[in-house]
Amino acid sequence: MTRLVGVKPVTAGDNLVDILINSLKKSHIRLKNGDVLVVTQKIVSKSEGRLVNLSTVKVTDEARLVAAEVEKRPELVQLILEESNEVLRKRPGTIIVETRSGFVCANAGIDHSNVKGDWGDPEDWVLLLPKDADASAERIRKGIEEVAGKKVGVLIIDSVGRAWRNGTIGMAIGLSGLPSLVDLRGVDDLYNYKLRVTVVAAADGLAAAASLMMGEAAEGTPVVHVRGFPYPSGDGSARQLVRSKSQDLFR
Amino acid sequence: MTRLVGVKPVTAGDNLVDILINSLKKSHIRLKNGDVLVVTQKIVSKSEGRLVNLSTVKVTDEARLVAAEVEKRPELVQLILEESNEVLRKRPGTIIVETRSGFVCANAGIDHSNVKGDWGDPEDWVLLLPKDADASAERIRKGIEEVAGKKVGVLIIDSVGRAWRNGTIGMAIGLSGLPSLVDLRGVDDLYNYKLRVTVVAAADGLAAAASLMMGEAAEGTPVVHVRGFPYPSGDGSARQLVRSKSQDLFR
Repeated sequence: MTRLVGVKPVTAGDNLVDILINSLKKSHIRLKNGDVLVVTQKIVSKSEGRLVNLSTVKVTDEARLVAAEVEKRPELVQLILEESNEVLRKRPGTIIVETRSGFVCANAGIDHSNVKGDWGDPEDWVLLLPKDADASAERIRKGIEEVAGKKVGVLIIDSVGRAWRNGTIGMAIGLSGLPSLVDLRGVDDLYNYKLRVTVVAAADGLAAAASLMMGEAAEGTPVVHVRGFPYPSGDGSARQLVRSKSQDLFR
Repeated sequence: MTRLVGVKPVTAGDNLVDILINSLKKSHIRLKNGDVLVVTQKIVSKSEGRLVNLSTVKVTDEARLVAAEVEKRPELVQLILEESNEVLRKRPGTIIVETRSGFVCANAGIDHSNVKGDWGDPEDWVLLLPKDADASAERIRKGIEEVAGKKVGVLIIDSVGRAWRNGTIGMAIGLSGLPSLVDLRGVDDLYNYKLRVTVVAAADGLAAAASLMMGEAAEGTPVVHVRGFPYPSGDGSARQLVRSKSQDLFR
């Protein structure tokens, strides 16, 4: 696993494939079949123009009510509601929702912490998740495969909180060209017993690993190159990682 | 991150420190200050004699009732209840509990899938989590530091299911000599903005990465050596990763 160097700051309309290919070159990495590029959600969202200035958002009455309850800016709450299927929990300081893509997370993944637009008050800018991160991953994968002539995987990750546990961890929000879940049921385990219920969330494991490698702070990098992902390449999606509501005991 | 080779099968009373030191030698790894050894819960539990034969378990009326409800063996349910503070959810096939150590997981982490004792029906043997995995990690760390003369971290992991997401992922259940959470609030991020709410569950990220590296199947290994863990060494505990009940919106 290698952190790419020289990934230039991304703005709306930038071609992420070009940016990734350039940073692979600067990092002296020649892609091989089966390699995976892990990309932070932030640069994907930026390239897709998902920056929003809160001063441009029209607030509904519903959002105003929720905003008072959770003590957040009404414009931000408006965006959270627009990006969500359902609010699961709310209390002062926190809204946990199911996003349009089915992910359960705080604030619909809307990020306030490290974005800036090119006008107005920097505090007014927020960044939404990609509209369909699986589709984003597929576009990037196809672009890279076309230039590099190799079969690769692309994994888009975000840092999220979790039920029951403190702290954030990297999670898969979009992917293409790699498996999301790997079903090991029936495979012999380390001790020659059959594994009984193990379906491994391989893409989430890789997301967590890559997130650790990227770092969150200034010396971090938004792209990690992975060689030797220990599962056969497959064509999963981040949607497969979402537990269906009927199967979820913690909604 | 390197998978250790030649880790011999562990049985009750084995000295895990000796086993780890030997496999480091066989793997041609010389420990350095700051290295981390990630160890699967299974070999720690086995060395601590946490194998139980279900035919020896006395079943209470409560366990018998719950067992009927969840359609599991009463002896297994008895052990699950003994290992738990509280049952959070139950339905046929599933019991989600808070373990004595505070972890929320299915079946109190009791593992049926790849253990065998030295008598009776192999189907009767199950493996409990270590009684206090933070203490186990500390003992192993101190033992290794004494032999190797280097400051290291030890992380004990298990594969667990999660709310909202399909598939299992590696999670920290015990640790010593490394941080559990890393507080990045106030640190400049990639784009020179202050990070606002980021406390990274660094030990869980490393657990997920190492678990992926170990693999679950026959070609897997129960120990991974990590060099270059990207956070300063610290003295965390897995208990710090447990969200307090009052802060948890999903109990």
